[in-house]
Amino acid sequence: MVLVSVRNPLNIGAAARAMANFGFDDLRVVKPYDLAFREAVSAVGGAGVLSRARVFDTLADAVSDCSLVVGTTAAAHRVPQHPIERIEPAASAMRGHDGRVALLFGSEKFGLSNEDMSFCHVLARIPTLPATPSMNLGQAVAICLYEVVRGGGEPRKSTFRAMDGAEAEQLTTMLLDVLQRSGYTNRITAVSTDLKIRRWIRRLRISRTDAPLLLGVLRQILWKMGKD
Amino acid sequence: MVLVSVRNPLNIGAAARAMANFGFDDLRVVKPYDLAFREAVSAVGGAGVLSRARVFDTLADAVSDCSLVVGTTAAAHRVPQHPIERIEPAASAMRGHDGRVALLFGSEKFGLSNEDMSFCHVLARIPTLPATPSMNLGQAVAICLYEVVRGGGEPRKSTFRAMDGAEAEQLTTMLLDVLQRSGYTNRITAVSTDLKIRRWIRRLRISRTDAPLLLGVLRQILWKMGKD
Repeated sequence: MVLVSVRNPLNIGAAARAMANFGFDDLRVVKPYDLAFREAVSAVGGAGVLSRARVFDTLADAVSDCSLVVGTTAAAHRVPQHPIERIEPAASAMRGHDGRVALLFGSEKFGLSNEDMSFCHVLARIPTLPATPSMNLGQAVAICLYEVVRGGGEPRKSTFRAMDGAEAEQLTTMLLDVLQRSGYTNRITAVSTDLKIRRWIRRLRISRTDAPLLLGVLRQILWKMGKD
Repeated sequence: MVLVSVRNPLNIGAAARAMANFGFDDLRVVKPYDLAFREAVSAVGGAGVLSRARVFDTLADAVSDCSLVVGTTAAAHRVPQHPIERIEPAASAMRGHDGRVALLFGSEKFGLSNEDMSFCHVLARIPTLPATPSMNLGQAVAICLYEVVRGGGEPRKSTFRAMDGAEAEQLTTMLLDVLQRSGYTNRITAVSTDLKIRRWIRRLRISRTDAPLLLGVLRQILWKMGKD
């Protein structure tokens, strides 16, 4: 579970408590507003999870060992570049995934940023009313973890082993390097190209065995370009 | 949704917000600790629900127009007198019920009392870990409402029309009266007999058409007893 830019320590505590309720232990916090979050008082039953939580400076670091990254979003925010699923199939994919999974929640006010989302393989939403889509963070966390645990009986185990976050990011960086050197990347649109390429690399679902091959190809291209 | 003896106004606010998220509107509060609960600040998006909430002195009043009453409980508290279901089948029964449904939550510290539970047709629990069963109230509310909404597509509509809470309570009172006059009820165990009878009446699932018949029978017995 990764909380990105969450502002209210009580919400971090509530997330930790829900994790304890449903048997999850690995809490990661990116850029928390208040570093005193460990003192969050509402974490009755979640104190253990909270004391083991780790703080990261960047989302890339936080998900570097994860091969499936699921972002959460309120139905209101349409992100046409990304497939949005309901939480049930996303939870099912999380259960069946062979490798480490990250479930991302954004800040209370803005949710996940476009850049945060570019690290996600899929976006999931809770089926709230269109008129009142925005949930309390602790409640959204509880529902997502419940949904992952709830369907625990289903034997939907995938044999696909995806590359992890570090490999995906390495591939992204090298491809962007190639694109820039080849003149594909326009300086003015560089940022949006970054996001586009990062999303595209995640969408491809490159397997653990294919990633080194692709990295080798890109390395070769870069070496060739450097020579010319 | 009925909150019984809930102490923290923030939790009432969180419950209201989850209700707004999932399209529920009828919030009833029994014996709230702090009558200033309408000022609950965490009710972003739930303000409308909260402003229409009604306060009741007794649970019997709060559920008098409800023909299915579902209580919630942490897995830790075993109540052998009552069937405990997981929340999924309970939510399915709530969706399919023909009549008004009450979903009950007890106080943060103690949950529902034995007396509160005696008003319930069924008890439901969220599948938390046995070691950390106790959930934050707002999170438990959110999960239950999510579960009711989630399976909304299933066409499981019951044709059974149960008597409502007022009829059930009238039947309970008259039967207790009969038992007392007939010498069945021991003064020392009177309270536990009350709970036993109340539970038993709910478990029977008496239909709307059968309730007047039974009431008539009891009335006749009482009249006969009064004459002797």
